[in-house]
Amino acid sequence: MSDRPLVLPFDPAGIVLDRQRGLSQQLYQALRARVLDGRLSSGTRLPATRDLAKVLALSRNSVVRAYDQLYAEGYIESRVGDGTYVSRLAKLSTQLSTGLSRGLSTGLSTFEGEGTEVLSSNARSSEPLQRLKNNHLPAPKSGAPRAFRVGIPAFDLFPFDVWAKLQAGFWRNPSPAQLGYGDPAGEPVLRELIAAYLRRSRGLSCTAEQIVITSGAQQAISLCAQLLLQPGDGVAVENPGYRAAGHTFAVAGGKVTGVPVDDEGMVCQRLEQVANCRLAYVTPAHQYPTGVTMSLARRLALLAWAERNDGWVIEDDYDGEYRYSGAPLAPLAALDRQGRVLYIGTFGKIAFPALRLGYLVLPPRLVQAFSQGRALAVRHSEVGTQCVMAQFMAQGHFQRHIRRMRKAALSRRNVLKAGWPVDVPGLGAMPEVAAGLHVKVAVDNYAREQELVARAEAVGVEVNPLSSYWLEDSEVAVDGRAGLVLGFAAVPEGEIAEALMRLRKAWRPLRGASPLLQG
Amino acid sequence: MSDRPLVLPFDPAGIVLDRQRGLSQQLYQALRARVLDGRLSSGTRLPATRDLAKVLALSRNSVVRAYDQLYAEGYIESRVGDGTYVSRLAKLSTQLSTGLSRGLSTGLSTFEGEGTEVLSSNARSSEPLQRLKNNHLPAPKSGAPRAFRVGIPAFDLFPFDVWAKLQAGFWRNPSPAQLGYGDPAGEPVLRELIAAYLRRSRGLSCTAEQIVITSGAQQAISLCAQLLLQPGDGVAVENPGYRAAGHTFAVAGGKVTGVPVDDEGMVCQRLEQVANCRLAYVTPAHQYPTGVTMSLARRLALLAWAERNDGWVIEDDYDGEYRYSGAPLAPLAALDRQGRVLYIGTFGKIAFPALRLGYLVLPPRLVQAFSQGRALAVRHSEVGTQCVMAQFMAQGHFQRHIRRMRKAALSRRNVLKAGWPVDVPGLGAMPEVAAGLHVKVAVDNYAREQELVARAEAVGVEVNPLSSYWLEDSEVAVDGRAGLVLGFAAVPEGEIAEALMRLRKAWRPLRGASPLLQG
Repeated sequence: MSDRPLVLPFDPAGIVLDRQRGLSQQLYQALRARVLDGRLSSGTRLPATRDLAKVLALSRNSVVRAYDQLYAEGYIESRVGDGTYVSRLAKLSTQLSTGLSRGLSTGLSTFEGEGTEVLSSNARSSEPLQRLKNNHLPAPKSGAPRAFRVGIPAFDLFPFDVWAKLQAGFWRNPSPAQLGYGDPAGEPVLRELIAAYLRRSRGLSCTAEQIVITSGAQQAISLCAQLLLQPGDGVAVENPGYRAAGHTFAVAGGKVTGVPVDDEGMVCQRLEQVANCRLAYVTPAHQYPTGVTMSLARRLALLAWAERNDGWVIEDDYDGEYRYSGAPLAPLAALDRQGRVLYIGTFGKIAFPALRLGYLVLPPRLVQAFSQGRALAVRHSEVGTQCVMAQFMAQGHFQRHIRRMRKAALSRRNVLKAGWPVDVPGLGAMPEVAAGLHVKVAVDNYAREQELVARAEAVGVEVNPLSSYWLEDSEVAVDGRAGLVLGFAAVPEGEIAEALMRLRKAWRPLRGASPLLQG
Repeated sequence: MSDRPLVLPFDPAGIVLDRQRGLSQQLYQALRARVLDGRLSSGTRLPATRDLAKVLALSRNSVVRAYDQLYAEGYIESRVGDGTYVSRLAKLSTQLSTGLSRGLSTGLSTFEGEGTEVLSSNARSSEPLQRLKNNHLPAPKSGAPRAFRVGIPAFDLFPFDVWAKLQAGFWRNPSPAQLGYGDPAGEPVLRELIAAYLRRSRGLSCTAEQIVITSGAQQAISLCAQLLLQPGDGVAVENPGYRAAGHTFAVAGGKVTGVPVDDEGMVCQRLEQVANCRLAYVTPAHQYPTGVTMSLARRLALLAWAERNDGWVIEDDYDGEYRYSGAPLAPLAALDRQGRVLYIGTFGKIAFPALRLGYLVLPPRLVQAFSQGRALAVRHSEVGTQCVMAQFMAQGHFQRHIRRMRKAALSRRNVLKAGWPVDVPGLGAMPEVAAGLHVKVAVDNYAREQELVARAEAVGVEVNPLSSYWLEDSEVAVDGRAGLVLGFAAVPEGEIAEALMRLRKAWRPLRGASPLLQG
């Protein structure tokens, strides 16, 4: 390759170049690594670009580019009329030995096999990371909708054609004023429309100024956790309940206590027993996951507790659009005269979860703090989604879609009810469903619950064990936590009927197992 | 109105109904208020719906609906064959007197005038809210772009037609699997494309698994603050620097210390003097706002510090796409062998800020924790924006747009340079700009800086005082903090030239003021 012998200051055989990738970049990296680990020591003269190009069978240009970058970054220096040398990094030598060198000696192996481990080997790992590790959030199931999946509305009915048109319309000619930094509390027009919607549909007399747009209900919960709690504060959550909320409070440093739920909702008198309780998180319209509606007496008791204790009540109205019979109770936020209730709503259960659009309705004195907290968290929500949703509401699509979704959910619920097996020992009957997108069915004991879930899974049907909605240190015995939680809106009627057929088949063998328990 | 005398259990004259709004809802609210405050006491018999309708000149239907809701919510009860009574809320009486009644007696006046106050009167206000109050984030300027606005790219050149088409294309027929709950770390296809982009353009050999998509750079900073810090931890930030980052760390409980910046970037040897320093936040490619590039020696020193102290380095490469001369230095993250650097990038400076799309490149062992932290914060980013950006990148629009933007910024920078007044005493010359979207110009002292800013403002031109980028307790004397920070990309060349003309006119009188300083 070369017709005269070359003495190079390093072994070019060690530089293996992948001809499929950028050669100058690879050469730069190889030389830099040698400077950093000392194989090319300070003051060493580098070969001329022409010579190195020959040895490595590269274009001279590639070598020039690699040298240029090394030069720009200070690894090498050029001496006029002489040549190119590895820089004198004298002042770095200590740092290199105490700092980088240890890393270089172990190389990249430091990282291997650590991918799934949260810093457990770090002697000085931070508390928040530890809390995160101790409070692993069970991810909501992802992928295409399945029968009985919880939290998924009938988004097969969402008018995506309308949405696509509105998106295209917004983006074809956006106002420059909307493309820079926006209002952390959200686009004013969307806040106005949400306030009007809540006044009309929930009897919640709020103004646009009280609304803070969030990236879904989860960000609303997260902001509450970050802004209202300090480490060690007590937090009361419903048990069973929405585990992701409890996790969020725990990661923010709250001491989370589960409060039992009976047929009137959270047993509020138990709040007094929660040490240093600062905040109660509830789902009064349709308790998650049991479906209970909190009674008026409990609502008043909860508000009274908040006032006596300077406490906060977070009211998560995650599926309030779905009510099939009876008038809905006024939200806690509508009863609250002390500015103690923070109301959370979401578009995820009317449109689709991946939209990540929700809102908080705040007591006026909290608005500024939350708006600022949100500015620090994400600045604001993506502007297109907000403006398109505002158009969607202003043009009446939203109200029409709510009616469509309510009707669809009701129809799908009826299919679930009609096809629910009635002769499986230990499995309760399908209760009346007055609200929401899911229903809880009683199961006699934990073993039976697990068996039902496993047999369903074996035939490819997803049903959720109620036991997974309880906190681990619940006072209720394990058999008392058993049940099934079934979403009924996620897929069309035909698929629900088909899944029910498979369920009945999968559970049929259980009928012989304990004949005494049968009807 | 009524032809027979009626004895009502309450004074109907007090119920004033607005005929423009829903009457049954108003009646329901009026009656509910009377039950709650005791004007309608427990056990009181309510008038028949027909009678009340007459007295109030309402349709009977409206009254029936109001009664229905009161009944559904438990405020009234019906006795078979008898009539309708206010519920016996005996068990609520204590709560009503200790709890709600105080609120009711003061009515809504509790809130008046409190709109702009962050809980200062709350004896038990939470620490996070207090920290937020003490660390007020200066909001970035909003509204249409202006000449010299900092942080705004030339988004007048963004191909909104392409973006609108991609948005419409995505939404017309989205995959159901993408509409439920997505990956908290972000859409896999976008993460792949970002990793490939960074490998190519920054020499950062990262994999898609190390990328976590965020809602802009701000959420990346916020996640770092929440997950890496515990209250009391020391945090080093550049001074002058990006104040919003410092605020975010302070609100998360960090003790923020400013470290001086010289012409090699952050003076890293000072880190040893920062008590219990856990984290250093830097902008090495183009220091914000001074524009300095961190030298290789400092980069190595910073990494060595992180390793010696189990510290974290946050490298915010907020405008790394803009480099006009010389090869860029490799990012800290490319030098890091110890997994101590968290690299932040954003699409906001190439597309437009309102997009709220950015990313973190994490050491592998941190990925799971950040992905979970993000799940708790917002679940994930809105799916459409992510998928459309992925298409935009995959189809080559992104690379083309970067070139277009770099060219535009350079051209706009040249106009700024050409028109910069050279004869204003105390105002420095326009320096060479090798990178970024803004430039720092020296000013002799604080008084002159304020005067320059005020005179510019008086003619409707926005220029930013460098003094506002310093921490309040800076060791540097106030005159040492003076300067101007000018964005040069936000508006087209003609508008920049026009603004410069106004500036020169506004500053002309200063030339006479201190003639000795001229020339």
